[in-house]
Amino acid sequence: MPSGEPSNAETADLSDDPIFRAHEGGKVAIFATKPLLDRDDLALLYTPGVAKVSEAIAKDSTLAARYTARANTVAIISDGTAVLGLGNIGPLAAMPVMEGKAVLFKQFGGVDAIPLCIESGSVEEIVDTIIRLAPSFGGINLEDISAPRCFEIEERLNRRLDIPVFHDDQHGTAIVVLAGLLNAARVLGREVTHMRVVISGAGAAGVAVAKLLLAVGIDDLVVCDSQGILGPGRVGLGGHKARLVATSNPRGLDGPLADALVGADVFIGVSGGTVPEEQVASMSPEATIFALANPTPEVHPEIAARHAAVVATGRSDYPNQINNVLAFPGIFRGALDCGAGEITEAMKLAAARAIASLVSDPTAAMIVPSVFDDRVAPAVAAAVAATHQEDSRLGGR
Amino acid sequence: MPSGEPSNAETADLSDDPIFRAHEGGKVAIFATKPLLDRDDLALLYTPGVAKVSEAIAKDSTLAARYTARANTVAIISDGTAVLGLGNIGPLAAMPVMEGKAVLFKQFGGVDAIPLCIESGSVEEIVDTIIRLAPSFGGINLEDISAPRCFEIEERLNRRLDIPVFHDDQHGTAIVVLAGLLNAARVLGREVTHMRVVISGAGAAGVAVAKLLLAVGIDDLVVCDSQGILGPGRVGLGGHKARLVATSNPRGLDGPLADALVGADVFIGVSGGTVPEEQVASMSPEATIFALANPTPEVHPEIAARHAAVVATGRSDYPNQINNVLAFPGIFRGALDCGAGEITEAMKLAAARAIASLVSDPTAAMIVPSVFDDRVAPAVAAAVAATHQEDSRLGGR
Repeated sequence: MPSGEPSNAETADLSDDPIFRAHEGGKVAIFATKPLLDRDDLALLYTPGVAKVSEAIAKDSTLAARYTARANTVAIISDGTAVLGLGNIGPLAAMPVMEGKAVLFKQFGGVDAIPLCIESGSVEEIVDTIIRLAPSFGGINLEDISAPRCFEIEERLNRRLDIPVFHDDQHGTAIVVLAGLLNAARVLGREVTHMRVVISGAGAAGVAVAKLLLAVGIDDLVVCDSQGILGPGRVGLGGHKARLVATSNPRGLDGPLADALVGADVFIGVSGGTVPEEQVASMSPEATIFALANPTPEVHPEIAARHAAVVATGRSDYPNQINNVLAFPGIFRGALDCGAGEITEAMKLAAARAIASLVSDPTAAMIVPSVFDDRVAPAVAAAVAATHQEDSRLGGR
Repeated sequence: MPSGEPSNAETADLSDDPIFRAHEGGKVAIFATKPLLDRDDLALLYTPGVAKVSEAIAKDSTLAARYTARANTVAIISDGTAVLGLGNIGPLAAMPVMEGKAVLFKQFGGVDAIPLCIESGSVEEIVDTIIRLAPSFGGINLEDISAPRCFEIEERLNRRLDIPVFHDDQHGTAIVVLAGLLNAARVLGREVTHMRVVISGAGAAGVAVAKLLLAVGIDDLVVCDSQGILGPGRVGLGGHKARLVATSNPRGLDGPLADALVGADVFIGVSGGTVPEEQVASMSPEATIFALANPTPEVHPEIAARHAAVVATGRSDYPNQINNVLAFPGIFRGALDCGAGEITEAMKLAAARAIASLVSDPTAAMIVPSVFDDRVAPAVAAAVAATHQEDSRLGGR
């Protein structure tokens, strides 16, 4: 029996399951975009013709953007250490997620995305591997890499590569959260910058959401990890958590999450924990709750609805799904279209505003557009490209 | 102006050229093999459904072969150090060649091949990078990596990976050369093992051709590099050249290529040099000449025809094109189909015999099938898989 075949018993079980049936043979494939029908085509697309194209690129590297697929090709890179809510399941088991992501990249952004799961433990090795692969790609989408490694990996890649590097678990989440929050504020007739926000979770998503909300001008922002509020009383914090203490929590709170929630306007859960109903009830009237843990939100949407005016989750079976797919296809589409070398904070803000603006009349049940709204990716792409052009005009890169 | 765009003058020039027109936007793309039309599809192919597949693979890694694209996906990896006849043009300029190869993999073998050009100098780095990428692939096709680095890279990967690793410049060439030679012997009514063979070139192709011809039982084989015959008089040789001295050249010849050619039955040129007509004339009557340098064969086919009974080149505009595309799509098709962990010498011999056998009545003008003969890849794949099954039965891996 070939080594790759599971036993008959397992096969029968799984074949009954529509999810496994949908995954038979994987979800992506390569196809040729140019016809190869005869010797003339072969001489044009392969030897000897191709030598002329390679020579031209060797002389002028900018021609690669035009005469290879690179300019529309993105690598989806994971080491399988923080896959969905499953944790460190390794690169092989992460492949179905990365293939699914490639399907979304193509369908929504027209981007050719290649799933690459890498077997590697150290930040050093992951960074080196990606840098070596960069000549093949117009952009790098990092995915499901555990915190805090993901921060250093992204920072180092951004310093060393001249193509956009984007950790979707961080920035995709942050962009869609901000889009939703902008419209929640519209629904409530409030200024988003005046809202008191509590984030539960200081991993990849929590840190990025905090940074983007600070960048948009939200001042009263408190981040909690599993030990409680990131505040002046927390000793021995390093890296991104120390930076959060320095940049957020202006009232200098310490203590458990429950203390932060008293009187808060917004709760953003990206932690996977559970918030008891009495703590939810302690928030301000007309509160906003984004309980984004998947599949089990930090606050059940029905409980949240008893205490909050606007409720969002990560789930497709409740209103207001905060789903990264609203962001990443358009982000890369825009960056590839305009040749941006990085995804700046300004681009992320512009993307969030573009997503929010597509809901012309937001209500408590509709603060973000549908994932299948085909205006979303083009609007995000246009916002990203326009921001890049503006930045370039002002002397940025 | 976006950084990726060439200037208008260049653009106009190149757009007139049908080769560049055929390369606009590159030659490969990703597509989704499963429909994603609504929320139900999204829940099946991505979250939350995909988590079940990832969990199953985390528990039983053999399921990856069935529920991801891995089992049909091969990486085409080059560092751009020995691209066609162009030499070390770097990874970016190598991309059009690798994309062309991916087109051929798909068209002839139904294999999804992903072009990956890597920026890296050392053997160590290339080996480490490929090992880290292996969870994403069912096989590794090495391409256009300079000798002697290619030998060590392939050897080390074969020791450390349980998926097939195949350096096409070596083995693809060797397999098709052997197929052609088997039929040249049939045309001439000779035993291939009794033929005296001279190989000019001790790079990737020359070394692999020599090894495969020795494996098939050809005894009187002499290999020459740019300094002449690899014989007992050559001092200070290391690595693969030293091994060739030990395993070939049973008459212990020394001296220039010209000396080796006197009375030889077969000349195989994989060097790029030029052989003067008087040396060609010194070969045995009814000689066989495979002048495979591209685009300029070591012996012009018209000159070769004056002195030899069977002539082959690497070119599509003369009869008997020795083209790797006869081998690699079927080799990987067969290896992926049967789950082989490596491409053994026995598989290579079987592949060569399968290619040769498709020419039922070989003539001097027809010793190998056409590249567009759609029987070739299935026949090669079947031969490879049958050899693997036979090896497994006998206790190999």
